[in-house]
Amino acid sequence: MAKKVLILMGSDSDLKIMNDAAKALAALEIETEVRISSAHRVPDKTMKLAHEAKANGFGAIIAGAGLAAHLPGVVAACTTLPVIGVPIQGGAINGIDALYAIVQMPKGIPVATVAVNGAYNAGLLAAQILAGADEALAERLVTFRENLAAEVNAKDDKLQEIGVEAYLSK
Amino acid sequence: MAKKVLILMGSDSDLKIMNDAAKALAALEIETEVRISSAHRVPDKTMKLAHEAKANGFGAIIAGAGLAAHLPGVVAACTTLPVIGVPIQGGAINGIDALYAIVQMPKGIPVATVAVNGAYNAGLLAAQILAGADEALAERLVTFRENLAAEVNAKDDKLQEIGVEAYLSK
Amino acid sequence: MAKKVLILMGSDSDLKIMNDAAKALAALEIETEVRISSAHRVPDKTMKLAHEAKANGFGAIIAGAGLAAHLPGVVAACTTLPVIGVPIQGGAINGIDALYAIVQMPKGIPVATVAVNGAYNAGLLAAQILAGADEALAERLVTFRENLAAEVNAKDDKLQEIGVEAYLSK
Amino acid sequence: MAKKVLILMGSDSDLKIMNDAAKALAALEIETEVRISSAHRVPDKTMKLAHEAKANGFGAIIAGAGLAAHLPGVVAACTTLPVIGVPIQGGAINGIDALYAIVQMPKGIPVATVAVNGAYNAGLLAAQILAGADEALAERLVTFRENLAAEVNAKDDKLQEIGVEAYLSK
Amino acid sequence: MAKKVLILMGSDSDLKIMNDAAKALAALEIETEVRISSAHRVPDKTMKLAHEAKANGFGAIIAGAGLAAHLPGVVAACTTLPVIGVPIQGGAINGIDALYAIVQMPKGIPVATVAVNGAYNAGLLAAQILAGADEALAERLVTFRENLAAEVNAKDDKLQEIGVEAYLSK
Amino acid sequence: MAKKVLILMGSDSDLKIMNDAAKALAALEIETEVRISSAHRVPDKTMKLAHEAKANGFGAIIAGAGLAAHLPGVVAACTTLPVIGVPIQGGAINGIDALYAIVQMPKGIPVATVAVNGAYNAGLLAAQILAGADEALAERLVTFRENLAAEVNAKDDKLQEIGVEAYLSK
Amino acid sequence: MAKKVLILMGSDSDLKIMNDAAKALAALEIETEVRISSAHRVPDKTMKLAHEAKANGFGAIIAGAGLAAHLPGVVAACTTLPVIGVPIQGGAINGIDALYAIVQMPKGIPVATVAVNGAYNAGLLAAQILAGADEALAERLVTFRENLAAEVNAKDDKLQEIGVEAYLSK
Amino acid sequence: MAKKVLILMGSDSDLKIMNDAAKALAALEIETEVRISSAHRVPDKTMKLAHEAKANGFGAIIAGAGLAAHLPGVVAACTTLPVIGVPIQGGAINGIDALYAIVQMPKGIPVATVAVNGAYNAGLLAAQILAGADEALAERLVTFRENLAAEVNAKDDKLQEIGVEAYLSK
Repeated sequence: MAKKVLILMGSDSDLKIMNDAAKALAALEIETEVRISSAHRVPDKTMKLAHEAKANGFGAIIAGAGLAAHLPGVVAACTTLPVIGVPIQGGAINGIDALYAIVQMPKGIPVATVAVNGAYNAGLLAAQILAGADEALAERLVTFRENLAAEVNAKDDKLQEIGVEAYLSK
Repeated sequence: MAKKVLILMGSDSDLKIMNDAAKALAALEIETEVRISSAHRVPDKTMKLAHEAKANGFGAIIAGAGLAAHLPGVVAACTTLPVIGVPIQGGAINGIDALYAIVQMPKGIPVATVAVNGAYNAGLLAAQILAGADEALAERLVTFRENLAAEVNAKDDKLQEIGVEAYLSK
Repeated sequence: MAKKVLILMGSDSDLKIMNDAAKALAALEIETEVRISSAHRVPDKTMKLAHEAKANGFGAIIAGAGLAAHLPGVVAACTTLPVIGVPIQGGAINGIDALYAIVQMPKGIPVATVAVNGAYNAGLLAAQILAGADEALAERLVTFRENLAAEVNAKDDKLQEIGVEAYLSK
Repeated sequence: MAKKVLILMGSDSDLKIMNDAAKALAALEIETEVRISSAHRVPDKTMKLAHEAKANGFGAIIAGAGLAAHLPGVVAACTTLPVIGVPIQGGAINGIDALYAIVQMPKGIPVATVAVNGAYNAGLLAAQILAGADEALAERLVTFRENLAAEVNAKDDKLQEIGVEAYLSK
Repeated sequence: MAKKVLILMGSDSDLKIMNDAAKALAALEIETEVRISSAHRVPDKTMKLAHEAKANGFGAIIAGAGLAAHLPGVVAACTTLPVIGVPIQGGAINGIDALYAIVQMPKGIPVATVAVNGAYNAGLLAAQILAGADEALAERLVTFRENLAAEVNAKDDKLQEIGVEAYLSK
Repeated sequence: MAKKVLILMGSDSDLKIMNDAAKALAALEIETEVRISSAHRVPDKTMKLAHEAKANGFGAIIAGAGLAAHLPGVVAACTTLPVIGVPIQGGAINGIDALYAIVQMPKGIPVATVAVNGAYNAGLLAAQILAGADEALAERLVTFRENLAAEVNAKDDKLQEIGVEAYLSK
Repeated sequence: MAKKVLILMGSDSDLKIMNDAAKALAALEIETEVRISSAHRVPDKTMKLAHEAKANGFGAIIAGAGLAAHLPGVVAACTTLPVIGVPIQGGAINGIDALYAIVQMPKGIPVATVAVNGAYNAGLLAAQILAGADEALAERLVTFRENLAAEVNAKDDKLQEIGVEAYLSK
Repeated sequence: MAKKVLILMGSDSDLKIMNDAAKALAALEIETEVRISSAHRVPDKTMKLAHEAKANGFGAIIAGAGLAAHLPGVVAACTTLPVIGVPIQGGAINGIDALYAIVQMPKGIPVATVAVNGAYNAGLLAAQILAGADEALAERLVTFRENLAAEVNAKDDKLQEIGVEAYLSK
């Protein structure tokens, strides 16, 4: 049975950004579960979600957080599933704090970090991970990439056809 | 009975720096317990130490960590004792990652952060906190400050006496 | 008699942020005094407030400042009470200047630093400090934490019930 | 048949760091191939290695680079396998340039980024990814984590037994 | 025959900024071709444009990109024409990521980097480069500089004439 | 005869900020001359203004610039009058580029640097410098400081009188 | 009578750097007094030195500090003499903390900031300030600048004479 | 007649780094002239060198500087030749100050910036610029690139032949 992806965040203020991950995964026909569970306010629940994720049919976890962003690392400490961390922009340091707090994990417990606010790419990365055991998904990813290329080519074709000024005034 | 201070770190590579906290507290006649317990490698043990700290006679916790420094925040999530965080210098980002990962705690769970490698000041701060319920300690802190002032004054007196060149060639 | 918390800032432009500290302390039934007193414009008054704070019944001081934020350090130099520093966002460097100017205190005079604009957490930290000599307050803090957890759980329950799209369109 | 991991770098000056990834994977009984292939000096060869990686039996690619670190992104553009990027410390900006150049990938082409010089964790992350289709590997990862925990516990036990001064003088 | 300048970007979201380069070149009577071609989505097309640029009559290439800005470096790897890189502001790191990802090119493959969003100056720089083989263009550049000076002088003259307050209230 | 202060900037886009310097100096009864003269567009005119400033009755020069802010340093190279540099906020790096480009002057040619956008303080600093040869001005500066203190005290008095909520709702 | 320059620092660890200011001033025949007086350890003494500086014959104050560098601002709050701040390199943030803590002074109390470790330039700047009331000093400064130019010219002449390789092998 | 490249720096302390530019140009058979001329100490000489460079047979100028690195911008203001700026690492801010002070040039006067300490690439870039009017040089650049590729391939071949451990122990 196809594996699901667990999408975690500590606060509903991150839901709009993190939903991009769910959208990317839906486009690739992967089932997701979206949960609000803070590393600091409900640490026991958060660790339980991580501990049980593999047994519950998940093949990867995406965790997003801002500021002193501990959620991805705390989750990664409680599972051997791949954990993808999404730094969320916000506050005076604008997400660089979250980036450092997620990517600079010490030896032994990695977190696969994507760009600040890069939840969509987190979804794609989860799909690329699941595709290792799901050849049909791997083929959908190839098609997805071809579509990306076609979009860029269509834009360039249109630009050559109508020129910069017309393109910008659209 | 006088309260103790729990000093935590995730790796013995931080012990040399963190021992400065123990030294400051010893100078102020406060008992400490120094433990190695990682937020990522042994999360359950770490949370247990935090949960039980108050019942075990501790009045404050000092936690030091480098890189994506989650230890102070994870500990703070599991106790209502004041938690003092010490960012440890190291790695390519040189401790600014640890500073951000400790100080930028989200609303609800504060960590009292000191300077990068500032374990000595963390010890003093813990003493200032314990002094709220211990007037004899408060008096020792006043004396400690007077000694700090006397040291600076002695250095300035010597400089005025022997001059810059002689002072520097000591 | 229960101790009070002194809340200081150098300019009334910081009052809106710093009032979050007063709110957190009010929620925990702790009395506060809010004062405007600049380290640069009225240094003598500022130092007097710090020197006399303990005798005036305060158990902790919260000081907030932006830019070259000297207020918390100047206050800390004049008292052995715990001083909590709040970096205030503003200007071209956006609060990172204030963070560095508060947290990087030299050996001997610590300031317990919280997140940029983290006045609410400064209030909670002051309460955790006062709770060392006030068991009833310690119990209110436990309840406060339980309420934080309940709020997160309620949000997650609602999200599971109505789904992401409905939740976001609220 | 078990999948292999391709380890790429643009210069042999990165080999010492990147070999940590090979060591982590060897400890988990995963076969690796280590190649020097620059995105800037031999772009065609580099893209060919990426294009053919899946067909050649690789399940993940680890790419390390310093400075304007384009290698992981260029590789990720040419494969749907998960690509793990390792920023390498060096030069005046000390690896923060490489971190930004790897983690901030635009929408559509993710790179799973680890800490600066975090090649060992890159190896572990690759193993966690391959374990999605290899239950025996998943079990070796659980054992690996238990060993990490045991090491930390052994150090703490020793510290409690001999004390800080003896521990530091080892 | 006078050489042209190729202006590249990976996404049409950069077109408005990059059009400043075309405007500067038009003012100096240099022909341009503006293309959308991503280093990550259509790497083969991008490399082909670079490989064939010299044969197609281009004397310089201007490439603009934001975030992990690989386009200028990837283009520079595929041509010996001078490549001018324009970091584009955007995202949480605000263009400093793009600046580092463009300017910190490793030994062997230079990219001539201009200011963040400095596409206009990129156009001028391309003109200064082409002027090495086009004396009439070199003379137009001298006139262009004289006009710049005249504009500044005219503003200062006006300021001296009407005063600061009148000038600001224009 | 009392000396004047020369206020320079490279572009009229900086005039609004730099006018704060003129205002501070006017409040202290010091005559100013405000000129637009770019270090890059009209270098000869700029250097002439600097060379002749002392002979023309100026006692200090204030120079403001943004981005790669060379104006203060170029001016300082052409005079032995004290030169005060004002970094102007703007562009993607938000004034930190201008701060570094002004304050980090090499050995031999100092620039007295103030805060980003700190033109008002630049005016005060110029007045403090001129006061070295003008005792009446020195007395006006003392009065100015007393007024600063009185303003802060008045605000604190009002806050104590009406309370935080009333003060904030003004 | 010629005015003197007061050189202050908070710790004798800064004496070696700060002595560069004394050297620059000695070369220009200006008398200095060098004092150790911390803003945090002996705030009353520090403020007294500042308050009495003008009456004691000083025409400018140079204050150097590292980390959360409050000394220059605290001194500036207690005098209307020009105060020159020298950020001292040190600690994990390497002097950028000190730079921000000195240069970003709020409206009303300026500090004339020089480069990190730029004590020599601080001395020159103090001389340029004193020269406003001392024409003989102004002439010594002109000679000083001519000597600087002559040194650079002599190096260039030598380089042209012996070539790069010989010059580098000296 | 083939054009030469002028290599400028403000201090002989930068000569060792800047000589890399001369080496790259010598390898491509381009004549260079290396001069020490500071923008701050000898501004008139520096501007004269820039003004006369084109008439003196130069086709491009390379200027290197550290700290508040004004030299490349000052030179660019005085010529319409392409000016390549090399930020030099040094001081507390480690070359990021120089990078910002060189690359962030305002509209109208571009500087082609390379990596911090990237003088070798500056030389290559100058060669790529001169090649626009020198087809034989263009062919030498193609050969140069082929040699770069061959070197990388040779290293990879050796690595495949002898393995990582043997390669590292060389």
